[in-house]
Amino acid sequence: MPLPHPFYPPATTLSSPYHPNDLDARTILALFSAGCTALLISALAIARTRRPSLSTQDQALALWFVLSAFIHIVLESYSFYNHARLPTNQDFLGQLWKEYALADSRYMTDDPLVFCIDGLTAITLGPLCLLLVYLILTASPYRHCIQLLVSTLQLYGDVLYYLTGLCSYYFMGISHTRPEGVYFWGYFIGANVPWVVVPAWCIYNSVKAMAGAIGQQTSYIQGKGDRNNSKKG
Amino acid sequence: MPLPHPFYPPATTLSSPYHPNDLDARTILALFSAGCTALLISALAIARTRRPSLSTQDQALALWFVLSAFIHIVLESYSFYNHARLPTNQDFLGQLWKEYALADSRYMTDDPLVFCIDGLTAITLGPLCLLLVYLILTASPYRHCIQLLVSTLQLYGDVLYYLTGLCSYYFMGISHTRPEGVYFWGYFIGANVPWVVVPAWCIYNSVKAMAGAIGQQTSYIQGKGDRNNSKKG
Repeated sequence: MPLPHPFYPPATTLSSPYHPNDLDARTILALFSAGCTALLISALAIARTRRPSLSTQDQALALWFVLSAFIHIVLESYSFYNHARLPTNQDFLGQLWKEYALADSRYMTDDPLVFCIDGLTAITLGPLCLLLVYLILTASPYRHCIQLLVSTLQLYGDVLYYLTGLCSYYFMGISHTRPEGVYFWGYFIGANVPWVVVPAWCIYNSVKAMAGAIGQQTSYIQGKGDRNNSKKG
Repeated sequence: MPLPHPFYPPATTLSSPYHPNDLDARTILALFSAGCTALLISALAIARTRRPSLSTQDQALALWFVLSAFIHIVLESYSFYNHARLPTNQDFLGQLWKEYALADSRYMTDDPLVFCIDGLTAITLGPLCLLLVYLILTASPYRHCIQLLVSTLQLYGDVLYYLTGLCSYYFMGISHTRPEGVYFWGYFIGANVPWVVVPAWCIYNSVKAMAGAIGQQTSYIQGKGDRNNSKKG
């Protein structure tokens, strides 16, 4: 008989004994939002100092990848490293994960998919996002390649995360989300949908930039060839 | 009490009643290899006719993406569409999947991860691989962008497929592979490892090509700027 807990389905066996949060949902979300805001303001100040000529669009993208790096490295590394004791942990991140898990109880169990996506994301995407911020600030020729790679991984990981959750519900009748709308629409959909929308836009942005450069290179080489031929003629 | 079947773990409940293959493993593998070889020879002939100047490396890559498209569109669409009756199906692809499932029984159950990866791969990567073959043959400026995108998705999908299988074994003690070495090393590792090695090389190849083009564009624009400034001066 599993211990009572607020996650769905109620019969789910958690990976460790459940300790209820002592912070309420509003406090957790307010503290988390305040932390993110402080991080983004500091990052904006640094970006403007290091490269004052950065366009507004690139400033926004640098901030997006700073926020992504923070979430991948801090939040996802935490859940990956602590996956066997998440229901018990009472530190701030433990309480944040317990609040989120009301929308997805797979974080409170030994679900191999969520564990593997989290681990892969934390180990590969976290550092790649930081590298990308550096590449944006230094206007590196590698910037759009890494932006395309990172955004493709973010988009695919997020779509797979959504799909596996929704498949469990529609094909196996197992909902990992509490029935109150705020958990499905606010947490599960709302908190993750930026990692579908922004990466999709970033992929478009990078494909345009790189195809433009390659097209220009091709016509430059062809133009050079034509000039050489007319000189010879 | 589940019906007896050859998949692991033996207590696994399959998604439909098990019908043993009437073709033996050698016949299935020989027919599949013959089909792939015929496809690749035809594709090579078409590629050489459509673009005789294609380098040997690009010929090899075009064949790789033809093979990938075939596997994504035919094999993975089949398992995605037939996921609820794979253990029963006796047509050739059904028997091929039952042979492969000796190395990964998740295809014979309602595993949401394998179902979602297969569906996503069939729907997105199959057509993208065909598009990529066309972009290689027409030397399109979009070729390397799509090659980077497709290869990143193939690499990530395959790594995630491996990791979730291995996590089940190492963390939960559930092996989906029969104990004979040929199934783990030959089928699970051997048949999938090309989708780690070749995409990793393709990513390197595309990043090099695109960063080169962007670097050249940047120095061309800077050079133009310098010439304009010296004219003004």
